[in-house]
Amino acid sequence: MPVTLNTADADFETRFIEMLSAKREDSTDVHDAVAGIVARVRTEGDLALCELTARFDRLQLDPDGLRITEAEIARQVAKVSAEDRAALELAAERIRAYHERQLPRDESWVDDSGATLGWRWTPVSAAGLYVPGGQAAYPSSVLMNAIPARVAGVERLVVCVPTPDGVLNPLVLLAAQLSGVDEIYRIGGAQAVAAMAYGTETIEPVDKITGPGNAYVAAAKRQVFGRVGIDMIAGPSEVLVIAEGAQNPDWLALDLLAQAEHDADAQSILMTTDPALGHAVAGAVDRILPTLPRAEIAGASWRDYGTIIIVRDLQEAAQLSNRIAPEHLELCVDDPEALSQDCVHAGAIFLGAHTPEAVGDYVSGPNHVLPTARSARFSSGLSVMDFLKRTTLARLTPGALAAIGPAAMRLAASEGLQAHGASVEARLVQLNERQKE
Amino acid sequence: MPVTLNTADADFETRFIEMLSAKREDSTDVHDAVAGIVARVRTEGDLALCELTARFDRLQLDPDGLRITEAEIARQVAKVSAEDRAALELAAERIRAYHERQLPRDESWVDDSGATLGWRWTPVSAAGLYVPGGQAAYPSSVLMNAIPARVAGVERLVVCVPTPDGVLNPLVLLAAQLSGVDEIYRIGGAQAVAAMAYGTETIEPVDKITGPGNAYVAAAKRQVFGRVGIDMIAGPSEVLVIAEGAQNPDWLALDLLAQAEHDADAQSILMTTDPALGHAVAGAVDRILPTLPRAEIAGASWRDYGTIIIVRDLQEAAQLSNRIAPEHLELCVDDPEALSQDCVHAGAIFLGAHTPEAVGDYVSGPNHVLPTARSARFSSGLSVMDFLKRTTLARLTPGALAAIGPAAMRLAASEGLQAHGASVEARLVQLNERQKE
Repeated sequence: MPVTLNTADADFETRFIEMLSAKREDSTDVHDAVAGIVARVRTEGDLALCELTARFDRLQLDPDGLRITEAEIARQVAKVSAEDRAALELAAERIRAYHERQLPRDESWVDDSGATLGWRWTPVSAAGLYVPGGQAAYPSSVLMNAIPARVAGVERLVVCVPTPDGVLNPLVLLAAQLSGVDEIYRIGGAQAVAAMAYGTETIEPVDKITGPGNAYVAAAKRQVFGRVGIDMIAGPSEVLVIAEGAQNPDWLALDLLAQAEHDADAQSILMTTDPALGHAVAGAVDRILPTLPRAEIAGASWRDYGTIIIVRDLQEAAQLSNRIAPEHLELCVDDPEALSQDCVHAGAIFLGAHTPEAVGDYVSGPNHVLPTARSARFSSGLSVMDFLKRTTLARLTPGALAAIGPAAMRLAASEGLQAHGASVEARLVQLNERQKE
Repeated sequence: MPVTLNTADADFETRFIEMLSAKREDSTDVHDAVAGIVARVRTEGDLALCELTARFDRLQLDPDGLRITEAEIARQVAKVSAEDRAALELAAERIRAYHERQLPRDESWVDDSGATLGWRWTPVSAAGLYVPGGQAAYPSSVLMNAIPARVAGVERLVVCVPTPDGVLNPLVLLAAQLSGVDEIYRIGGAQAVAAMAYGTETIEPVDKITGPGNAYVAAAKRQVFGRVGIDMIAGPSEVLVIAEGAQNPDWLALDLLAQAEHDADAQSILMTTDPALGHAVAGAVDRILPTLPRAEIAGASWRDYGTIIIVRDLQEAAQLSNRIAPEHLELCVDDPEALSQDCVHAGAIFLGAHTPEAVGDYVSGPNHVLPTARSARFSSGLSVMDFLKRTTLARLTPGALAAIGPAAMRLAASEGLQAHGASVEARLVQLNERQKE
């Protein structure tokens, strides 16, 4: 049995806060190590990339070999089965359709003063997508990162994916191809982030870097932030399932285990109004867990972070959910729409018993790159907006300047910025002189 | 005369890249010092705030004195002249009107599979606004940070503003009052950012921190990013003015000086098709500069970073502008709308001779917190969006799950995530059994 909390217990608040503040990630400070790697890539370029790739990925490369060639991609992609290709194409199409609706509109209007105001959205010119390698080399992540960039209109799309021991992942390459990625490099870690931010002889720099990664990747993104844009610092994944009594315990157990199998640091939480359901789900998890190929990972996650919380009612569930601010929130209740209105801090909400979180990882359409570790309090999943920026526009007529310029002069004076005021005044003086003529 | 470049010169590209890559900020790494301050605030709370404020701001405080009281605010605000108040109110009203148009809409639709998809925007619960103190304590910055937060629907709005030697700024306090700020603390630097991110006995933590600041504030924001959201790492300000021949040289000179007077690290660039205009503007700057109270600062900026670039035509100007990606872009040309279409990387564009950048600092309506140091390539000025986050929503019907679930199972299998696939399969099995009945 995992930890079971009950909001009726006297020590609930203490234990809930304990759960909320539990650090699920190794907190080793890799700042200095990463700073060293970033500095090396900046000064030594391709040479540093080759040496670091040899060291970390056990792969000897010349600078010429950093980029995965079209021929290699074609060879790998040819290995993908028709069924896998069809599934990936369906996912790509649905993700594209969802994200196309996110394109924001430009605005322009004339206000009372006669000023024309507005803004305009334009895409980032070049984006770099980090795709984790090895155990977590997910083709679905390529789609989720690259398609929003393409929908936004990004001209140049780069992928960096480490290939430990030189092993390429055909589905990752196919996903990149389906998404319209322009360049793929077989590098990973902090060195990949540094290369995309600063450029090397072989890799032109990009303007924005997105995608999840380990502690080194996260630290590197943090350090290059400002030089380039980044999406977010992703932590271990989590799901909160809120369920009422009549739900199928096996389904809920599988949803919890689907989260747990990602990573030993992942967290699966069941919140239910029905203690019997909580008990049944815990039993189902115990029964199903040993049958999973990733039983060791899922078991560690469930043992260390799995939690069942018994609540009085759904209002209480929503309040606690808002404090958790879960990355994924499943509402397996009779009226999920109503409950979702009260759940204001969540990355993605899955409504009803026939929307398992796993469909959101692949094919439902919304992005699966979502805010973790309570950051849904202040941030959103990846979207088309991450690859766009907004330029504000203002055009004042002489009349508009006459109407609002004096207030600007007054405020400039109060802030001690005389040239600010004078730049307005010089124009107003001329307007006044013209009026006199 | 400042540096003058001419795109017709053989060494132009070299010199332009030199200008682009010139580091205008002192690059001292304050990471460790800031990490120490953040750690102290986390462990010692209010006590650390009081000690650090005594050290950096020469101000002895008890924890009780950290917050500026309503009575103090009222006393200070009463000192503001009617004219200053009216100017601030006009600015607040115009900023509010502009930002209200930024509120995005929720979306929901049913797709071909029968899935209901969409997203919903919700505000951040609590936001903290950093306002620089001393020389750069700008009431206009309070409006520009606080009003978008309020328009977004943020419930709790906190301001931290250092008050060196205990001196309060009546206009800053009035601006906070007009913007609907709930709490104001007289603390600054990395310690203020740490307090807002982690909370102390006196200060409840917030979810998002915005606002410009010095190197310590920037480093602190970088370090707490992830724990809370932040807006951007702001650097020294810059303006690019693109002008055709018939423009008034004095107006342009004042616009360049308005930027230069902010900070010795600020940069003012004039780009013109007319060498004679470039010469006239340089002369006007030399004439006006000594008359400014901030002549020393503006003079240093103009001497060290001021640049005049002679271009062949406006197409070339737009291309170079996109490489600069200026924070502020003034288009003093005959057809500024047409030229603005080609200027795709800029924080804010000011169109026409009667829209001096200074009106944008105060009263035109768009935000003056804008991306600096070429970051307009990938980021936008502060907006209502910075205080909102998006939750994606999906609800599948049994039919939708039957249609798209098998593709999810296939992709889960290819990624080795068996519980993912099983969570979909368990539901499909039941649907198939029901169909047979």
